[in-house]
Amino acid sequence: MTWSANQYTRFESERTRPARDLVAAIPQDSVQLAVDLGCGPGNSTEALLARYPTAAVSGIDSSEDMIDTARKRLPHLNFEVGDIGRWKADRAVDVILANASLQWLPDHQTLYPRLLAQLAKGGCLAVQTPDNLSETPHRAARELAASAQWANKIGSVRHPDRHEAQWYYSLLRPLCSRVDVWRTTYFHELQGHQAVVEWFKGTALRPFVAPLDAQERETFLGQYLDKISAEMPMLEGGTVLLPFPRLFIVAQRSA
Amino acid sequence: MTWSANQYTRFESERTRPARDLVAAIPQDSVQLAVDLGCGPGNSTEALLARYPTAAVSGIDSSEDMIDTARKRLPHLNFEVGDIGRWKADRAVDVILANASLQWLPDHQTLYPRLLAQLAKGGCLAVQTPDNLSETPHRAARELAASAQWANKIGSVRHPDRHEAQWYYSLLRPLCSRVDVWRTTYFHELQGHQAVVEWFKGTALRPFVAPLDAQERETFLGQYLDKISAEMPMLEGGTVLLPFPRLFIVAQRSA
Repeated sequence: MTWSANQYTRFESERTRPARDLVAAIPQDSVQLAVDLGCGPGNSTEALLARYPTAAVSGIDSSEDMIDTARKRLPHLNFEVGDIGRWKADRAVDVILANASLQWLPDHQTLYPRLLAQLAKGGCLAVQTPDNLSETPHRAARELAASAQWANKIGSVRHPDRHEAQWYYSLLRPLCSRVDVWRTTYFHELQGHQAVVEWFKGTALRPFVAPLDAQERETFLGQYLDKISAEMPMLEGGTVLLPFPRLFIVAQRSA
Repeated sequence: MTWSANQYTRFESERTRPARDLVAAIPQDSVQLAVDLGCGPGNSTEALLARYPTAAVSGIDSSEDMIDTARKRLPHLNFEVGDIGRWKADRAVDVILANASLQWLPDHQTLYPRLLAQLAKGGCLAVQTPDNLSETPHRAARELAASAQWANKIGSVRHPDRHEAQWYYSLLRPLCSRVDVWRTTYFHELQGHQAVVEWFKGTALRPFVAPLDAQERETFLGQYLDKISAEMPMLEGGTVLLPFPRLFIVAQRSA
């Protein structure tokens, strides 16, 4: 199951807000060279460009569909299909933005310092990663995948490990002049439980449904909807309030 | 023990950031009349004025020391000593800002709707309240106050009840066209455990030390420092990372 820009952008306004919050916290007032790692359909790149309109901004993503959409959105920027886990800068960059992308990669203990090393002195690594593995939508997916019907095929599916704020702070602080860490839980107002399924179908559920055929996927997503409906309260007017915690890191490399 | 503007402003940069984040999320682009309830030394009022430089902005606080400091900072604005729990607008206002103040008041179920009713149609109530009663600094204060030495005098001291994001959302949503709720944990880089004591001495610890005489206060704060030192890890370089969760609500009254 490949990434779908169309599915992802169904909640674009909600998904772009963390990117805007992240970009707003970058301390530099002016920037020459910036890169958006895991740029998706270009919404985070757009936020980066809005803050630094004179910078040379480029975007990299593993998905051709995402890169096609990003190119249509921002035709004057340079977008490339590539593996952000192996990315190296041609020359030192001022800002590396990674909005909701690094959580797909393993081994953050070596990944984050390696990214820092691609920065010019005084440059910033600005990262936002979902911190929701303990929330109902993830827990429900793991529980369902571990049930008798699915365990053989997808019972052992796991997202890569994530870490707490203090862990990233301690890792990065010795390499930086300043490390700003915060964790925000947004409460998204969704209309009904099906909207929760739609939200995660394009992201967190992908590793669970990827090994399934079309019929199995439909069955799995139906059971997932039932489970979500039982576990997340519906409020007056049919709203489901989705708590979505995200971890933010803005690390400025020592000058 | 009265409020001290001097003690409060020792961490002004850290304490103003939530106010700036709150003000940035108010949806109106222009505003005529705005009030800062519990304005303290005027740092939040300044953030409000920076966003709406042409608005008539006023500030109210129960502390004369705070109001004196606010008047010196922003001499052209109208600041008054007053009880924000009884405040009523002379005429409908466009924005009510309440940054780290409403948590001192009881009965949010009637307080918040009463504040909404002071707004013009389409106006906004923008609130930030610490959501840290379960964090180490508060828990340690309650545990110490409940110990044999202190229980008689301050064992039953409690801050007013606070509620979760979902509670405020459900309370306000029927009265509003839009309710935006989020919860951010800032991780403050403090130098040593004494700095944690200093941070809370001017705010959360006040109800605990208010009933004590000078000698008792010194003893209590010394024991509190020991307890905090044992329970919060010190990182490389003597830093203590203080997690500080805060709840944000921006509620726009129905037009």
